[in-house]
Amino acid sequence: MEKVKELLQLDKEAEETVSRLTIHPHRVGYERSFYNDFGLRGIRVDKVEPGFVSCTFKVPPRLTDKNGNLATGAIANIVDEVGGSAIFVIGVPMKVSVDMSISFLGTAKLGDELEITSKALGERGGYAGTLVHIRNKATGELIAEGRHSLYGNESSKLLFGNQSSKL
Amino acid sequence: MEKVKELLQLDKEAEETVSRLTIHPHRVGYERSFYNDFGLRGIRVDKVEPGFVSCTFKVPPRLTDKNGNLATGAIANIVDEVGGSAIFVIGVPMKVSVDMSISFLGTAKLGDELEITSKALGERGGYAGTLVHIRNKATGELIAEGRHSLYGNESSKLLFGNQSSKL
Amino acid sequence: MEKVKELLQLDKEAEETVSRLTIHPHRVGYERSFYNDFGLRGIRVDKVEPGFVSCTFKVPPRLTDKNGNLATGAIANIVDEVGGSAIFVIGVPMKVSVDMSISFLGTAKLGDELEITSKALGERGGYAGTLVHIRNKATGELIAEGRHSLYGNESSKLLFGNQSSKL
Amino acid sequence: MEKVKELLQLDKEAEETVSRLTIHPHRVGYERSFYNDFGLRGIRVDKVEPGFVSCTFKVPPRLTDKNGNLATGAIANIVDEVGGSAIFVIGVPMKVSVDMSISFLGTAKLGDELEITSKALGERGGYAGTLVHIRNKATGELIAEGRHSLYGNESSKLLFGNQSSKL
Repeated sequence: MEKVKELLQLDKEAEETVSRLTIHPHRVGYERSFYNDFGLRGIRVDKVEPGFVSCTFKVPPRLTDKNGNLATGAIANIVDEVGGSAIFVIGVPMKVSVDMSISFLGTAKLGDELEITSKALGERGGYAGTLVHIRNKATGELIAEGRHSLYGNESSKLLFGNQSSKL
Repeated sequence: MEKVKELLQLDKEAEETVSRLTIHPHRVGYERSFYNDFGLRGIRVDKVEPGFVSCTFKVPPRLTDKNGNLATGAIANIVDEVGGSAIFVIGVPMKVSVDMSISFLGTAKLGDELEITSKALGERGGYAGTLVHIRNKATGELIAEGRHSLYGNESSKLLFGNQSSKL
Repeated sequence: MEKVKELLQLDKEAEETVSRLTIHPHRVGYERSFYNDFGLRGIRVDKVEPGFVSCTFKVPPRLTDKNGNLATGAIANIVDEVGGSAIFVIGVPMKVSVDMSISFLGTAKLGDELEITSKALGERGGYAGTLVHIRNKATGELIAEGRHSLYGNESSKLLFGNQSSKL
Repeated sequence: MEKVKELLQLDKEAEETVSRLTIHPHRVGYERSFYNDFGLRGIRVDKVEPGFVSCTFKVPPRLTDKNGNLATGAIANIVDEVGGSAIFVIGVPMKVSVDMSISFLGTAKLGDELEITSKALGERGGYAGTLVHIRNKATGELIAEGRHSLYGNESSKLLFGNQSSKL
């Protein structure tokens, strides 16, 4: 039990580092949260087309795990946020994440530049799927492939046009 | 494009908040990273049995999204870390996450107390599966159910005994 | 290319075996299809509670793969059908499968008796999640764990009562 | 309980249809099984490149569900088999499926011609990932997107060369 506790719980010093973080309260429903900033700060949106988003992101120190690689949780956050942005339509309320599935096929080191693409796959009723690829920009190596499904009451007709599927 | 940029990229003020974060460099390979601290600080390990871990966690401000709910990425991080801890065995090198899949079935608000359980499902060769449930401790509502697969060169015989499957 | 063709395409004799199958046309929308019969014939429903179904199934020759194990596709079919049955409510139109995710943790041999349980996890709007476990009934070994998400226009209030989550 | 029994269990007549199926015993370990024939008969391999396979398949009556659509289980079987074929290398023992995850984004009707592509994503040690897309050939609509992870003791160096990731 001690070993697992050590693995999951933090020591005093570490706790203090995080506790010194002053999280500015954000207005709920407003576009930003500290968590959002923490996970995406530095990301650059390179290209936006209907149902497609491409970004560049350099692995920062704050998102590395104990081995110095981009943390699994940080990858999941990217799949969530960049995936969701591909189905974002002006005036349509954001959908809620309902399913996420990721394969981790490689590792990204501190400072590696990543290319992140997200593609809307299609939708059924208020349910929409997106596909996210995270690659090492220099080598082309696939770091992770994620699929992310969202659900909302309104469908985003603008994005899928004739390709949208019917229930 | 501007809308998506706004969605993913941060404004000046927000950027500064995150940039003021001083990330203490950690020795690579050492158990802790800032990311680990950031995602798990405050977690309490309640119970550890072979192949089973149970924890309590109160949703902190730093992990809430723009709607004031525990962020999807933070849930994924919990599934990753607490899931991995269920197959942790003294002396066996930690495995690497290869697949993660999560259903988001509810929401957890700031201050909600969560019960997080992780169960080792079994293994095949160096491949192991774990199942993580995140519940609202007061109401019992299931917030998320995640499955997390890890891969390593050595199998953790101690955990699965006769139940381990053969390739 | 020849090797992959051989792997996926069938030889003459095998083609004839399958082509001799006379598939009785079924009325579309009616509860049964030949595929349904093919994948589930012999299953015994042991227990039904709100949001929970338990069945017994003996691995038949028709569902074994080239190694004599219950085929991956047959496992997926069980996860789909038995998972879906756990959210079945009289008078509510069946939902459509939108996401399925399975970990294959063991193997089931021809003649092995399986215990299959399906549990409704919860729902958000018209979206519902179920969890399916397939175990060797004699040894308790977990063969597969699957999650299956369905979507429909009407929610099944009867099943989840106070535990249902809100969007 | 009766309703769920009706849903999963078969009536007498249906049982007889399936029981009249004479499954020719196959030598275990041999490339073919009846299940394989049942799920893939009629598939045409159009293109094979290292780590890539493309096929055509017309939805046959035997694989349709009660609504006349290609059954969810049949889609899963295609993701399994065609996905696996993309990492097939002459002389390397076939890997075992360990994880599969599918989004069902559309439906395919009886007689629809499908384009099925499978791409090897990469590998870590003996673990490999593949991505499968199933599209309506005429309309381009995406029916399903699946990810399929396999595990084996030997890695398929031939396929990934310098892009393969290290643990």
